[in-house]
Amino acid sequence: MSSPTVYLDHAATTPMVPAAVEAMTAHLREVGNPSSLHASGRHARRVVEESRETIAQALGCRPGEVVFTSGGTEADNLALKGIYWSRRAADPRRTRVLSTAIEHHAVLDPLHWLTTDEGAHVELLPVDERGRLDLAALRATVEREPESVALVSVMWANNEVGTLQPIGEVVELAASYGIPVHTDAVQAVGAVAVDFATSGVDALTLTGHKVGGPFGVGALVVRREVDVTALVHGGGQERDIRSGTIDTPAIASFATAVELAVKHQAEHATRVAALRDDLVRRVIEVVPDAHLHGHPELRLPGNAHLGFPGCEGDSLLMLLDARGIECSTGSACSAGVPQPSHVLLAMGCDEDQARHSLRFSLGHTSTQSDVDALVEAIGPVVERARAARAR
Amino acid sequence: MSSPTVYLDHAATTPMVPAAVEAMTAHLREVGNPSSLHASGRHARRVVEESRETIAQALGCRPGEVVFTSGGTEADNLALKGIYWSRRAADPRRTRVLSTAIEHHAVLDPLHWLTTDEGAHVELLPVDERGRLDLAALRATVEREPESVALVSVMWANNEVGTLQPIGEVVELAASYGIPVHTDAVQAVGAVAVDFATSGVDALTLTGHKVGGPFGVGALVVRREVDVTALVHGGGQERDIRSGTIDTPAIASFATAVELAVKHQAEHATRVAALRDDLVRRVIEVVPDAHLHGHPELRLPGNAHLGFPGCEGDSLLMLLDARGIECSTGSACSAGVPQPSHVLLAMGCDEDQARHSLRFSLGHTSTQSDVDALVEAIGPVVERARAARAR
Repeated sequence: MSSPTVYLDHAATTPMVPAAVEAMTAHLREVGNPSSLHASGRHARRVVEESRETIAQALGCRPGEVVFTSGGTEADNLALKGIYWSRRAADPRRTRVLSTAIEHHAVLDPLHWLTTDEGAHVELLPVDERGRLDLAALRATVEREPESVALVSVMWANNEVGTLQPIGEVVELAASYGIPVHTDAVQAVGAVAVDFATSGVDALTLTGHKVGGPFGVGALVVRREVDVTALVHGGGQERDIRSGTIDTPAIASFATAVELAVKHQAEHATRVAALRDDLVRRVIEVVPDAHLHGHPELRLPGNAHLGFPGCEGDSLLMLLDARGIECSTGSACSAGVPQPSHVLLAMGCDEDQARHSLRFSLGHTSTQSDVDALVEAIGPVVERARAARAR
Repeated sequence: MSSPTVYLDHAATTPMVPAAVEAMTAHLREVGNPSSLHASGRHARRVVEESRETIAQALGCRPGEVVFTSGGTEADNLALKGIYWSRRAADPRRTRVLSTAIEHHAVLDPLHWLTTDEGAHVELLPVDERGRLDLAALRATVEREPESVALVSVMWANNEVGTLQPIGEVVELAASYGIPVHTDAVQAVGAVAVDFATSGVDALTLTGHKVGGPFGVGALVVRREVDVTALVHGGGQERDIRSGTIDTPAIASFATAVELAVKHQAEHATRVAALRDDLVRRVIEVVPDAHLHGHPELRLPGNAHLGFPGCEGDSLLMLLDARGIECSTGSACSAGVPQPSHVLLAMGCDEDQARHSLRFSLGHTSTQSDVDALVEAIGPVVERARAARAR
């Protein structure tokens, strides 16, 4: 008899909330392309536009600012490439893109492509040892030649170590030079307070499967004043920025999830942070040389990123998995490749330190018994991982 | 009391088959990112790889040739831009892209972008009055300078008038010069026999919501020998050609739908073609100057594209819709914009002829009573549309 899985990998993907499952299944049995003119098409269109309004209400933006995509990766690609192309087309001097060394691959890899294929000059700004952007470095880089900056992209919260970034200060600096700011807020929405208009950012990425909604759907929230060159061309859907048949069931489900996640954000954060603090405290009690990575306060409520000296993170992950406890060594998206985390390296860890870490991420289904199970398992697992390494 | 809708717009989108709904809903309640290393992640990965095998089996390709995308539009964009970029990078002379004047906007619009932004020279080959590609024109264009052709893209079957294209001959011609061929087979899979290996094409687009699967998922089937530059960069999923979190539930549902659609294709085609032939014959009995567009035999089994002289297609559509009968004036994707169809114009229709047409498309839920309802309604509706126009 196997015990139930202890899922501590909500940052990779979190279970759908029941209301989002219901919204999805309700629409799966309906027919109608939202671009069709007949009654079925108009009904589907209405569902999509109501979903757009729901998301706008939840995120403090206007409905017309929500551009649906297939997820966070596509939204990041669209923001970075689309705004870069438009800004450079308007002024060929604008070839610089400023970002951080700790972005997700969905940002870093498009930036790399812009460098190799589109003549961009990308500068990845450093972070401090707690994973927070060095604002002085960003300021110096911007002020060196502000007229050549196409855009600035800084994530709202880091997906590995959970550190929140100083988005307000980034926006203030960039805005004073008229430079647009994009933020990947995939990990932030529903976990911390995110208000598009108040934040002052020009473009913001979110995705369904991190907020209790489905895979395969996300959005780029982007101010209408910001020109975005399309990445995918076709039928002209979504303000002609993102073509492709509109996925009504997924969008309805996504909107339901966003609405609930934002509505319950504050109480969720309090509850999950208490569990997380308990997890960190008790794991360090059991493994005294374990230590928390990232910022002690300015971090995602569900993130506990811990270093276990003398262990391989991959071994720990597998040993915990064998006991039904699921976590991650870093971002799931590059987890297939056993490389030291670029985030930890940017925070000043050496390769060894970067390899001995685990991310436990809590979410809406997490309970005290999940934490208890980890605390019970971690001692023997670390011991075994250390023994394996010493051999 | 309203009568049930008569849905004759299956080419825009067709209802999900029950087994595909079940496959989707079964996986919506599971958690696990297929890129995660723990048991939940590995389970999700297994579902994805089994789905890939199912699709490969159904389409006569290898599992490794299936690249999942967010749908047909993205797959077309990936094929056209990705193969163009790779072929041009390997030989800078390869700037020509040859296609047809009757492609879907998901092909025409990326081609337009390649022209304006990427230095491509696109040639759209003509079709005859039945909507079939002029092979002699294609041959002449290829042979003028074969070494400058990056790729050829010809749809398997036209989405508006239903005409099947001579893919075998296109492949034979292109292959003799080593030029890769892409085909948009979105309308063809499940409607006619489609076998990737036998066809000889290098890349083939299909999508979920045209075969009884969900929106938001599709695939580019592409030979491993063909280099495809990525359009969306990030975590490196799908052979590093298409990054983004893998949508397990949609993929499982898509695979179920493809498998069933291909399994039942022959009997489906026979049944639906009989209904379609009955529809065409009886509509012309009622409206004697109505006429069928497209090829009389080489056409999709469910497609009836009819011209009604003296009517506005949009008026007919709305009058039928008011009676609960749903159809289209052309492609749903551009249906919001009342322009004469580029397909009909390419077939030699004048603007007036191009505007007086309707597409009735039948699918797996179509019945004799749907045809009867249309035949009953079409006489008074055409009369009223003509009267409205005469005013």
